[in-house]
Amino acid sequence: MNRPAPVAPVAPTAGAQRPLGLDEVQITGGFWARRQRVNAQATLAHIGARLESEGWLANFDLAAQGRLPDGRRGREFSDSEVYKYLEALAWEIGRSGDASLDLRLRATVARIAAAQEPDGYLNTMFGRPGQHPRWSQLAWGHELYCLGHLFQAAVARHRTRPGADDGLVEVARHAADLVCATFGVDGNQGVCGHAEVEVGLAELGRALGVPGYIDQAALFVERRGHGVLGDVEWGREYFQDDVPVREATVLRGHVVRANYLAAGAADVAVERGDRELLDALRGQWERTVARRTYLTGGQGSHHQDEAFGRDFELPGDRAYSETCAGVGSIMFAWRMLLADGDMRYADLIERTLYNVVATSPADDGRSFFYANTLHQRVPGVIPDPAATSPRASSSLRAPWFEVSCCPPNVARTLASLDAYVATATDVGIRLLQYAPSSIRTTLPSGAEVALEVDTRYPADGTVQVRIATDAEFVLGLRVPAWAIGASARVTGADGRTSVQPAPPGLFEIRRAFRSGDTVELTLPLVPRVTRADPRIDAARGCIAIERGPEVLALESVDLGAAQMDDVEDAVAGLPVAPVDRDGRVWLAVHRRTEHADGWPYEGGAVAASGDVRRTSGAGRGVSDPARGASDPAVEASGAAVEASGAAVEASGAAVEVPLVPYHSWGNRGPSTMRVWIPTA
Amino acid sequence: MNRPAPVAPVAPTAGAQRPLGLDEVQITGGFWARRQRVNAQATLAHIGARLESEGWLANFDLAAQGRLPDGRRGREFSDSEVYKYLEALAWEIGRSGDASLDLRLRATVARIAAAQEPDGYLNTMFGRPGQHPRWSQLAWGHELYCLGHLFQAAVARHRTRPGADDGLVEVARHAADLVCATFGVDGNQGVCGHAEVEVGLAELGRALGVPGYIDQAALFVERRGHGVLGDVEWGREYFQDDVPVREATVLRGHVVRANYLAAGAADVAVERGDRELLDALRGQWERTVARRTYLTGGQGSHHQDEAFGRDFELPGDRAYSETCAGVGSIMFAWRMLLADGDMRYADLIERTLYNVVATSPADDGRSFFYANTLHQRVPGVIPDPAATSPRASSSLRAPWFEVSCCPPNVARTLASLDAYVATATDVGIRLLQYAPSSIRTTLPSGAEVALEVDTRYPADGTVQVRIATDAEFVLGLRVPAWAIGASARVTGADGRTSVQPAPPGLFEIRRAFRSGDTVELTLPLVPRVTRADPRIDAARGCIAIERGPEVLALESVDLGAAQMDDVEDAVAGLPVAPVDRDGRVWLAVHRRTEHADGWPYEGGAVAASGDVRRTSGAGRGVSDPARGASDPAVEASGAAVEASGAAVEASGAAVEVPLVPYHSWGNRGPSTMRVWIPTA
Repeated sequence: MNRPAPVAPVAPTAGAQRPLGLDEVQITGGFWARRQRVNAQATLAHIGARLESEGWLANFDLAAQGRLPDGRRGREFSDSEVYKYLEALAWEIGRSGDASLDLRLRATVARIAAAQEPDGYLNTMFGRPGQHPRWSQLAWGHELYCLGHLFQAAVARHRTRPGADDGLVEVARHAADLVCATFGVDGNQGVCGHAEVEVGLAELGRALGVPGYIDQAALFVERRGHGVLGDVEWGREYFQDDVPVREATVLRGHVVRANYLAAGAADVAVERGDRELLDALRGQWERTVARRTYLTGGQGSHHQDEAFGRDFELPGDRAYSETCAGVGSIMFAWRMLLADGDMRYADLIERTLYNVVATSPADDGRSFFYANTLHQRVPGVIPDPAATSPRASSSLRAPWFEVSCCPPNVARTLASLDAYVATATDVGIRLLQYAPSSIRTTLPSGAEVALEVDTRYPADGTVQVRIATDAEFVLGLRVPAWAIGASARVTGADGRTSVQPAPPGLFEIRRAFRSGDTVELTLPLVPRVTRADPRIDAARGCIAIERGPEVLALESVDLGAAQMDDVEDAVAGLPVAPVDRDGRVWLAVHRRTEHADGWPYEGGAVAASGDVRRTSGAGRGVSDPARGASDPAVEASGAAVEASGAAVEASGAAVEVPLVPYHSWGNRGPSTMRVWIPTA
Repeated sequence: MNRPAPVAPVAPTAGAQRPLGLDEVQITGGFWARRQRVNAQATLAHIGARLESEGWLANFDLAAQGRLPDGRRGREFSDSEVYKYLEALAWEIGRSGDASLDLRLRATVARIAAAQEPDGYLNTMFGRPGQHPRWSQLAWGHELYCLGHLFQAAVARHRTRPGADDGLVEVARHAADLVCATFGVDGNQGVCGHAEVEVGLAELGRALGVPGYIDQAALFVERRGHGVLGDVEWGREYFQDDVPVREATVLRGHVVRANYLAAGAADVAVERGDRELLDALRGQWERTVARRTYLTGGQGSHHQDEAFGRDFELPGDRAYSETCAGVGSIMFAWRMLLADGDMRYADLIERTLYNVVATSPADDGRSFFYANTLHQRVPGVIPDPAATSPRASSSLRAPWFEVSCCPPNVARTLASLDAYVATATDVGIRLLQYAPSSIRTTLPSGAEVALEVDTRYPADGTVQVRIATDAEFVLGLRVPAWAIGASARVTGADGRTSVQPAPPGLFEIRRAFRSGDTVELTLPLVPRVTRADPRIDAARGCIAIERGPEVLALESVDLGAAQMDDVEDAVAGLPVAPVDRDGRVWLAVHRRTEHADGWPYEGGAVAASGDVRRTSGAGRGVSDPARGASDPAVEASGAAVEASGAAVEASGAAVEVPLVPYHSWGNRGPSTMRVWIPTA
């Protein structure tokens, strides 16, 4: 195929689908356009101001002035936040052409370029007198990680403003050349403790047409997994240095590292036609999705090492589900989607976009969840807006973090989101994410294809695609796995109509379309009652309610009618159908029978016959001994395993309470919240 | 009351019960005597050798030689491990009179004494040129923490060998005087980031008759909770510096810190007759036991900060349940027991002894669990015996840790365990823990009381108490809360017998006993089926099996007959009663129906009527799109909330498998294990 390079974050030279760039797809309204607008108007300025006030931008000035290490502020990876901010600016400029953002980008690039050393080295933390030498702290120093983000920023700029004279691409190229000279086949055999340079080098190689960058990315991918980084408290899997990428069967260790590495490895596999590596990655993705992913698409249950737990170790109240891990998961899944063409990758991307990426920022785009718990047991504290919050302990969205990877990661994702809406094949267009949007591209056949998509999705399940050109092509529509009963109605410009069922997966219509033809996809958005694999202990006996791509949550501020202060006492009945006029789902909620506030475990003795004799009540273990002494309370019961009253018991009439989309929780002040709700 | 000072770790001057010391109680056989023997013969030597090989003892030599900081090894709290080792030696010498241990203690004390500075300061990490200044790092430096353990060691030596000329008590007194001079009313207003000096100072004050030490302990207790330590990533509750002790309602933050602080506060409250403080501590204990304690008695569900979770945040697979937290919980509960006389404290102590303290060491006493998970999902790796394991990531017992607080903490607990068996009141004796033992003491009335306890407990529920003196007194017997149906048979030396029911709590027999009288307590040891409060998410729909004080566990090595490799597929039926000849409990186990290895959440749509339409199977979310596309699979079902097949389904005949006491798991090589077992 002779493909034009798309204005998109990822542009493989092979694969089942070609991405459509920002010049070919524009989101024009709805759920995501609103978030993109907040991103452009509030979040980017917020990040820029914080990078300034935290001194992370000034570090580059100090470097240029030869004043480092004195006065350097921020963690060892703070340079990378500047680069991710640049990448977000570049995509947003590409989307909107905003001149003031362009000035901001140029001014920022100038400060970075001034800090670059003559041989291309660029990092404010290493290499100067009084600092550790260059590349001396590969496991924890994040030097290559930071450069990976620089490369991604340069790719964004190169693709959105080819030939721009700001110098960003040159800075990146200079640094990439140094990396290749330093870490090449006969060079330093190390890898960075945090994967990212792989994906950055691969894409920079694609963008600039430098195969050597892709070769270097491949070297980094292959070197890892042989214990090159040394052991750490949580084991070598933390760095994905326990098993070579092509031998691994599941993602493991630090979740962001794992997904960034997998994304880079996918790039390498595609560019080198390495089927074995791609097969290994597919298997890792499948097992990770099947066993190590929360209902929200979030990943990671270990707070300590920000890592995957073991298979099915997914307790809601210890969900870490780092925002950046969601971004990383989308990066990985997107590359696999382009390679394989399989809609299930787009299903996970949609789930993660709605329930992780959209969850992180507040409505005003100026505060963020770093971690995304599925069960908030105690109302959080509103963080001080002027403060820098610790990494992930904020229980409400916080304006900034000491490790502030999430805000710019969300920003660059939202600014480039248009590129994830649709793809092209040799014979047509595939719509992957449903948003009001304009799509026009030229197929390899030379056919000009133009579509206008109109929808209120996810509030409404109707997606109308209006064809704006005469062309014969295959229109592919992703029908999400949950959309049982979907249908597609094709209405010709001549008014003739046909309706077909559209089962989950890829639904395709091959037709000589005429301008004015419409295809109306109807996705059933009735609420779904979802249960988890019983190996996920903490969700056993619970339901979650989903509607379309949105996971819903029960938030305490909505429990007033049920006279409950927090979600701990709520027992779920059935959702009330249909949804109300505002699209809200209401759940019948019972109040749990009050429990004695004593020892929370209740046992019954198994007698010789297999009978169970019941102790008299919860709280016996810590009950008053005088009371205990006066109450022998030996109660013979049937031969059931029902030994106790500690099972969920609901009392009183059900009260209907509205559920909120999980992504919108925590926007009404401190509250408690749960996604998985116990049933009676 | 005119009480002799007991040879015991805690000797309050007031309270409902008086501890009986090692001179009054000796464990003579059985479950705990075996562990004490292993502790004396293997563990103490193992610890001594490791303290030497790790260089933590040599740090004192370097200090004495003026060579520090060069060559110092170990973390900032390594001095404390030496002191806990000394305390364990002192108790063991007190128990057994072992002369070689006495030599070892003396040699160790000499090396420590040589490192003490002229003004009493003692710490190998601070205060020298090239080190941080003394007391400059109170939040994390552990200087006062280390001294607290020194004081506890000195108390042990003073009480077991009063007037010994080894110098340990003098070293401690010198250091304690410096602490009081430095941190007194008008001195440095700081506190240590890790509580421990409070409990050490209070007991040293009691032992040496220095009220000023207790006053200093009170100052430390009262100062904390006002933000004196600064904020940290996990909030000030990590240090218990969020709320003053007397205002707190529950233990929170770092579990060992929280329990050590509560223990010290209890000492202060008792010595100063501070009812308000004691009431606050009682409330904290009650709520902590009711909401933040695992079935094993273990505490702490956060790996990251080794901390309590929120109420009911007790997932089995993320149980941290640090061994030292169990020791700390026993310290706190023991002080409350002496103050209040309430048997529920002894219930928790028993539970924690059998299921945390006894769990940590391997059968050979040379390796340890640092953390005590309730659910091991993947077989662990046997740690390298020569290596030092990271803090808590070992999934099998490890010989030593970088943070090696647990081995000496277990050792000092086992070496002083005799002191936790029984207490005295003004009118009698109370038996709190059942082990073969000899007890003799003099009551305030002057009555000489002597008892011989014989039992195979916990293998058997019969406890025979033989009275060995003629004396009128009240014999109190703790009947555990689970022991519904217990009875006591009193048989006079004359052969006359009476039987009474003995309900849970404190069962008392007031009698003019004659030598040769026996009291036989029968505790029903039939297996119990235990369920958890449903607010403990991960235990919902599960049972645990307990027998007597032992929590039982299902370990994969016993699942061969059920043709299962690990515990993940096991579904519990009923335990098989009665227990077999070896006292083992057998559980009927079904194999769970195989699940598709796809998306682990399954939803059914709620239709307008409230009906649920079922999606066709697990794995749909990641199923092959081609399959999905060919399978519309809209299945109308009844109007139930049973939306999915993801509930636990068991197949095939039940197979009976033996359960192991939780404390003995992991002694047969790598395995998976769970305490909470899902039911069908």
